Amino acid sequence: MSAFSPAFVAQLNELFRLRRDVRHFRRDLLPPGLIERLLGIACHAPSVGFSQPWRFVIVETPAICQSIRAIFKSCNEAARVAYPDDRAAAYAALKLAGLDDAPCQIAVFAEPDPDTGHGLGRQTMPETIAYSVVMAIHTLWLAARAEGVGLGWVSILDPAQVQACLNVPEAWQFIGYLCVGYPLEVHATPELERRGWEQPRPARSAIFRR
Amino acid sequence: MSAFSPAFVAQLNELFRLRRDVRHFRRDLLPPGLIERLLGIACHAPSVGFSQPWRFVIVETPAICQSIRAIFKSCNEAARVAYPDDRAAAYAALKLAGLDDAPCQIAVFAEPDPDTGHGLGRQTMPETIAYSVVMAIHTLWLAARAEGVGLGWVSILDPAQVQACLNVPEAWQFIGYLCVGYPLEVHATPELERRGWEQPRPARSAIFRR
Repeated sequence: MSAFSPAFVAQLNELFRLRRDVRHFRRDLLPPGLIERLLGIACHAPSVGFSQPWRFVIVETPAICQSIRAIFKSCNEAARVAYPDDRAAAYAALKLAGLDDAPCQIAVFAEPDPDTGHGLGRQTMPETIAYSVVMAIHTLWLAARAEGVGLGWVSILDPAQVQACLNVPEAWQFIGYLCVGYPLEVHATPELERRGWEQPRPARSAIFRR
Repeated sequence: MSAFSPAFVAQLNELFRLRRDVRHFRRDLLPPGLIERLLGIACHAPSVGFSQPWRFVIVETPAICQSIRAIFKSCNEAARVAYPDDRAAAYAALKLAGLDDAPCQIAVFAEPDPDTGHGLGRQTMPETIAYSVVMAIHTLWLAARAEGVGLGWVSILDPAQVQACLNVPEAWQFIGYLCVGYPLEVHATPELERRGWEQPRPARSAIFRR
């Protein structure tokens, strides 16, 4: 297929707008097998040299989930106090993670030096390994949203602490922690825009020519 | 809209499979305004703290395109000679960039410390700025492919040399160089798989539980 139908293109653009970072989740579980199927789709993401460096750790032990919440709480408080008073109050009013409710949580890592791909494409830019994993997360995000499942990316975490509490290989690079589940609300605009934290910038201001 | 139709989901999965890294381009130009519209869609990508840190540099000066080709050629040769003999021969046989033919080329950068977003979400993981730009590239990739336009991500480049020849702010972080145009061929499998460089790994081997 060379191009998709205009109807599909229109719906795809709607998907991009409805993707959203979700922090408000219903607590009901995902159907058995759904997350594994969605992760299978995520593995169709681009990867440098076809290295497929993504490693998905489904976190299901309650004590580990509790430790992740504690790490978030401490990092979030450290971030809050670094702001001047008015911004700190605005920051404190935001809900920045769905860790208390999301029924499915996934820590995502990169294997920084996989045999797969034989090093192709990453001699000058080894960071493309992490970038490949980011595109797998983004693929998961879109695939999940298309099926009515929300995802929130938690970055307010200390990578070393997350790594320690998950007992994964030391060489793995922590990329992000994902909350997954059915969203309480559906929105076409970012939560940070709705709550007045930041506004969208026109695309033309991000385009330059040389 | 809570979930999309099963027909849309099926087509979306087809889009993920047909996305492909394109290195073989037709030379005909894109219609006027198309790339700007696609970049507008890319700006709907997720970004940490709604920071929108992407900076797209459309490279249209022939002398600059020529310099980028020279940087690629030298980095690609350095990568080739680092392989043992048999792999080096296999590497040399691969076409790894469409720089000679792609009618539209874009260097993509991250603004590492934008005012936009007020620093939210990136105190512990500043690399989420680069990750946001990667998701904008991936959004562009999917949106372009849906409209029949191919994209190839060139990572075999020295970032400092690219930065110097484009004369962009020193603080910007080079993320990737994109070749964009109509593809010569359509495939549902990666070129590196078709040419025997690497095979797909089963998703289950990338899933762990804790």
